[in-house]
Amino acid sequence: MASTHWLRTPLLAGMLATTVSANAANADERPRAREAGVTIGVLAPGPRNAIVDVAGVAVGHATVIEGDRIRTGVTAIVPHPGDLYRERVPAAIVVGNGYGKLLGISQVDELGELETPILLTGTLGVWRAADALVEWQLARPGMEEVRSLNPVVGETNDGYLNDIRARPLRPEHVRRALDTASADNLEEGAVGAGTGTVAFGWKGGIGTSSRRLEQSRGGYTVGVLVQSNFGGRLTIGGVALDALRPERLAAHQAPPADGDGSIMIVVATDAPLDARLLRRLALRALLGLGRTGGSMSNGSGDYVIAFSTAPGLRRAGDGTAPAPAAKVVPNDAMTPLFEAVAEATEEAIVNSLFRARDMDGHRGAVQALPLERVLPLLRR
Amino acid sequence: MASTHWLRTPLLAGMLATTVSANAANADERPRAREAGVTIGVLAPGPRNAIVDVAGVAVGHATVIEGDRIRTGVTAIVPHPGDLYRERVPAAIVVGNGYGKLLGISQVDELGELETPILLTGTLGVWRAADALVEWQLARPGMEEVRSLNPVVGETNDGYLNDIRARPLRPEHVRRALDTASADNLEEGAVGAGTGTVAFGWKGGIGTSSRRLEQSRGGYTVGVLVQSNFGGRLTIGGVALDALRPERLAAHQAPPADGDGSIMIVVATDAPLDARLLRRLALRALLGLGRTGGSMSNGSGDYVIAFSTAPGLRRAGDGTAPAPAAKVVPNDAMTPLFEAVAEATEEAIVNSLFRARDMDGHRGAVQALPLERVLPLLRR
Amino acid sequence: MASTHWLRTPLLAGMLATTVSANAANADERPRAREAGVTIGVLAPGPRNAIVDVAGVAVGHATVIEGDRIRTGVTAIVPHPGDLYRERVPAAIVVGNGYGKLLGISQVDELGELETPILLTGTLGVWRAADALVEWQLARPGMEEVRSLNPVVGETNDGYLNDIRARPLRPEHVRRALDTASADNLEEGAVGAGTGTVAFGWKGGIGTSSRRLEQSRGGYTVGVLVQSNFGGRLTIGGVALDALRPERLAAHQAPPADGDGSIMIVVATDAPLDARLLRRLALRALLGLGRTGGSMSNGSGDYVIAFSTAPGLRRAGDGTAPAPAAKVVPNDAMTPLFEAVAEATEEAIVNSLFRARDMDGHRGAVQALPLERVLPLLRR
Amino acid sequence: MASTHWLRTPLLAGMLATTVSANAANADERPRAREAGVTIGVLAPGPRNAIVDVAGVAVGHATVIEGDRIRTGVTAIVPHPGDLYRERVPAAIVVGNGYGKLLGISQVDELGELETPILLTGTLGVWRAADALVEWQLARPGMEEVRSLNPVVGETNDGYLNDIRARPLRPEHVRRALDTASADNLEEGAVGAGTGTVAFGWKGGIGTSSRRLEQSRGGYTVGVLVQSNFGGRLTIGGVALDALRPERLAAHQAPPADGDGSIMIVVATDAPLDARLLRRLALRALLGLGRTGGSMSNGSGDYVIAFSTAPGLRRAGDGTAPAPAAKVVPNDAMTPLFEAVAEATEEAIVNSLFRARDMDGHRGAVQALPLERVLPLLRR
Repeated sequence: MASTHWLRTPLLAGMLATTVSANAANADERPRAREAGVTIGVLAPGPRNAIVDVAGVAVGHATVIEGDRIRTGVTAIVPHPGDLYRERVPAAIVVGNGYGKLLGISQVDELGELETPILLTGTLGVWRAADALVEWQLARPGMEEVRSLNPVVGETNDGYLNDIRARPLRPEHVRRALDTASADNLEEGAVGAGTGTVAFGWKGGIGTSSRRLEQSRGGYTVGVLVQSNFGGRLTIGGVALDALRPERLAAHQAPPADGDGSIMIVVATDAPLDARLLRRLALRALLGLGRTGGSMSNGSGDYVIAFSTAPGLRRAGDGTAPAPAAKVVPNDAMTPLFEAVAEATEEAIVNSLFRARDMDGHRGAVQALPLERVLPLLRR
Repeated sequence: MASTHWLRTPLLAGMLATTVSANAANADERPRAREAGVTIGVLAPGPRNAIVDVAGVAVGHATVIEGDRIRTGVTAIVPHPGDLYRERVPAAIVVGNGYGKLLGISQVDELGELETPILLTGTLGVWRAADALVEWQLARPGMEEVRSLNPVVGETNDGYLNDIRARPLRPEHVRRALDTASADNLEEGAVGAGTGTVAFGWKGGIGTSSRRLEQSRGGYTVGVLVQSNFGGRLTIGGVALDALRPERLAAHQAPPADGDGSIMIVVATDAPLDARLLRRLALRALLGLGRTGGSMSNGSGDYVIAFSTAPGLRRAGDGTAPAPAAKVVPNDAMTPLFEAVAEATEEAIVNSLFRARDMDGHRGAVQALPLERVLPLLRR
Repeated sequence: MASTHWLRTPLLAGMLATTVSANAANADERPRAREAGVTIGVLAPGPRNAIVDVAGVAVGHATVIEGDRIRTGVTAIVPHPGDLYRERVPAAIVVGNGYGKLLGISQVDELGELETPILLTGTLGVWRAADALVEWQLARPGMEEVRSLNPVVGETNDGYLNDIRARPLRPEHVRRALDTASADNLEEGAVGAGTGTVAFGWKGGIGTSSRRLEQSRGGYTVGVLVQSNFGGRLTIGGVALDALRPERLAAHQAPPADGDGSIMIVVATDAPLDARLLRRLALRALLGLGRTGGSMSNGSGDYVIAFSTAPGLRRAGDGTAPAPAAKVVPNDAMTPLFEAVAEATEEAIVNSLFRARDMDGHRGAVQALPLERVLPLLRR
Repeated sequence: MASTHWLRTPLLAGMLATTVSANAANADERPRAREAGVTIGVLAPGPRNAIVDVAGVAVGHATVIEGDRIRTGVTAIVPHPGDLYRERVPAAIVVGNGYGKLLGISQVDELGELETPILLTGTLGVWRAADALVEWQLARPGMEEVRSLNPVVGETNDGYLNDIRARPLRPEHVRRALDTASADNLEEGAVGAGTGTVAFGWKGGIGTSSRRLEQSRGGYTVGVLVQSNFGGRLTIGGVALDALRPERLAAHQAPPADGDGSIMIVVATDAPLDARLLRRLALRALLGLGRTGGSMSNGSGDYVIAFSTAPGLRRAGDGTAPAPAAKVVPNDAMTPLFEAVAEATEEAIVNSLFRARDMDGHRGAVQALPLERVLPLLRR
């Protein structure tokens, strides 16, 4: 049951002909929501509709697929190409539902800054990923005297498709994600930390989207990248897709009991926001999550990590340089950014579903969202 | 421009004939969402689809309309008919956006309990309402020796329809709301604390809804009452109603700059939840808010106050009695309650709009949501 | 320079002879801790060892003593002499134990700023005080169009000396405290909001202290003002004064059961700190509280409100002006400020006890701390 | 300059003769504070004055000393001897200063429970320790189907005595600490996670203490274990020991700039406290920290992890069993526990200094607290 099947559906094949040929590397390529004619919200996306629309942000994935049972990976989000430890970015973390293992929370809360790249991976790999990130970063030039580092590493549980107890993540996977991070990376779906995830019962994964505000509202870009692995009543652009899974509706889609589920949401912006404002921004990402039908179920670890790339707000990590003096966005000008992050989060989640392909794995197979059934429902 | 106009629309008149005749006191009565055929979510409401479906909860309103400029009021939510000071209910407060004056937060956070009724009113009346509530409660039998009380009083800013700086709220209004509180009160719209509020540019107000879980999922009831006064991209049942206000869409619906806006959400449940679980529950109400198109704008004070009426969890206020020993809901059984509160909040907001009528006031007039235009859009 | 010196000072020796014996009204001036030779900590105080050492900060008290039973008052702390609503100061609130009624918390948390003076008063007067503050501030020039205001008003329970249920606080008391606020006010003890409070079983009240950092550590001033009304194992300069009250030690000084107790701590600084840094600063005030022997008992409402007067950080309240661009203190330079606030809080509490006089009132009399017994114990 | 020197002081040698012979493995053994006549607070300790006075709690240490440069280790605190994953204990975490890497915070916050032992170690070993703990626990009987686990692992920075960048911690060290954990373990000082730590410029390490309340106040035991690695103005029993280090006083003891410093505080109690009450309890541990002269400096990671061993509050980890129904301590009865935890924390810190011996290491040597100078100062 390959994901290419849907392209044979005449209905969709015609509709998507252009976008697919323009964007895809091969016939397997599934469209992003917007390419398929699904528009989320009213604000304009950035040029690539991705977190990398925020200048300087780079993304890297290491996809770990081995044999029949290993389906995991790691995704790195790098806030800027400079020395992150010495040019720290303001950051904040918001916890929607805290049933997860996100590492690094308290130092980000206290100091309001990020000093490493962000990593996403599978649940039981989170500590090894952090350890490998520390090893990698301590080995960089200029880090010889550093004896403390606060890696921010999140996870969702890929334990259905992936033999999570085998704990396959190795330091080289982490290094690969970090070393290949690029400001051009637009990969989505079953890639990196999204390799083995499941959302709303369909194959989830990595998704991204962005919004760019008009100049009159600040002209800022907000980019979001998600690792989708949660459930609820799947709703796309306001349309609840109950018809796809009538039996799940009846069963109220009870989440698995073993802590499966979760979504990691990474928000980047070039708006000059300090930690307090970033916390406000991050909270609104959860509204976008809610609009897709998620309810932050008990078994879900739902986290938002937000940072600002505004150069004027970067802080020296050696404690001697004075804090920066850039003007931050006034409270009263935050609302457009709030709207932007909610929309971009919603669309990033939808993209993660649109772009993910069928996947077989450890405990079974998970189908990609059947676009040939979804799109007609959305067009109605 | 009376709101009764829409009933003359043949399209709707037919559709609503039954529900209106069955539910309304007179021809002016506007339908609730569900009466008009609009269904929010998939879970079943309680018998009255209102916060008073939670046994023991009473609601009272004092509507204050004086001359051309006074349009305010006060709403009381009473958790149970007993001595609230001596039989305290577990409670929690969640702040979505804290641009508001909700009184009583820190003591609820610290002690995890509520010892007074909850009041809602207009912004500049909140301290007088609290003072009057204290006066009222200290005068009750058995309170002679009490020298501390923590009134929980919230507000939204009704300063467009109401001459808020005239500060018309008086103690007798508060007493009236408290003394008339009833477990049968189903009033919605421009009543009590909703008298002068505006939501999404239309007349907002009080709205309520409930959900009752199946026995297999606990059989609990979750009831929500809102005072709607916020903005965003109005979305009902997933349908964004941009067509109603194309000019606002173009303008991105910037919120007023003076702190107007806000929503107060009160959540009651008979599920035995302690303060920690109530906090988790309250957070999900914000997902329902997001589904109506709200983005918790900067100028909005968005608060959720949740309490449990489970008799076994009531705590003696005199400090001598042992704490109760009732079983609380396990973490793993919370998800259905999360889904319920998100749905009930969404529907309560929609009800507040459906039921509110046109209102003239201090700085102008605000139209009720034009159901004759809305319902066809929703039916498409 | 032993603390015994002061007893040899004719000035003081004579002064205390009377007060101790008669507890009287003026010859009876009691010394501050430092005047009596008691030094708290190692950092240098500012020139007046008071919160008003922070330039621009003004303090006003209205002491309300009527007949035999009314012993209350209100204290105003005004961050700067300008238009507070339009030149808001960064602020943060930390809750030690939240059994109290501090009004205004959530908006300070959300927006990170203060837009009114701070008031302190007795528990059941807090709402009227807030209402009167709003009335007073809305009547000021330039406030004609303002329709929202977030008064920050704290309290402790003066219900032993004061007939708190008589609720004697009136708007004119609030206006008097505000209108008489002065940058020269050094009053302490049973004045303003401290009129009826009790601490460690002795007469408490208002106390203040400050620290000025050396230029090499920033040169900043930190000022603290407290309203002391709490209990514990009284400890001054590290010396536990169990000998004063052997019977209380045996009884472990159980706090009253009716919610009595509490301390309000107001921290001002001219260091350029944003809300996040002010929150970090405020938390350390609790360490100073702990050093006096307090344990933030269940019945205590222990709050810290901190603000920065740095002119470069003031924010326009009308939402149109850009946020300020002043450099804030780097995280790594915060430690001296942390030490300063802990020391100043400890000394302010001690000052409140040293300066308060005996007081008769509603339910009995409370003795001032018997300095003639305390000072020899400290000298040992 | 060995730490044994002080025993040659006739004054002390006599005083300590008994205790040392009774408690020590060899003549090197240094006394605990109470053995040396130093009494902290007024409440009575438990029989062993240690965290293991809380029935069921076990402690294990792996001390890692290799060559001249490796001085680290790991300490395990095991809440009860049963299946921690299936009989979870209520827990809460409080952050004093969040400049640290404590892993597991958000899940403890959300679910209010602990499902693994707690580990303490050095900063750069924290992720490997967590990974090894997960490996160890997943391999236990009955864990075959578990695919999610939330290890709680804290650290302080031992990077002065230890070559922290060499990252010497290995899984066998973690297993050793876990496998040797015992309810009789009373080791303190330079052991386990305390092997390489420094406090107030002296050798710090592991310290423990307990308090047992009288039956009339509940009869509960509160036990504390600390890993001390922080600074400030060293104060023991209220006596500031400036005389030990006059040059540091002059220099205001600026903390190192690289993030060194910190204290981990683990609190166990048999009092039936739920997560909310444990959070309240944990906060008071910081008061004990403050009484030793700490100011939670910027570079310090100051954390408190508190749990209750009350059997009636244990929660099934499989989500099917109902939550327990034990009575928790009423809010109004919490104050004695607050006093107990502050005292026990203060004494545990003092014990860590009293018991730690001189240590050479990576970047130099650190002296043990010179008791022969300290005790006379305290006796004055």
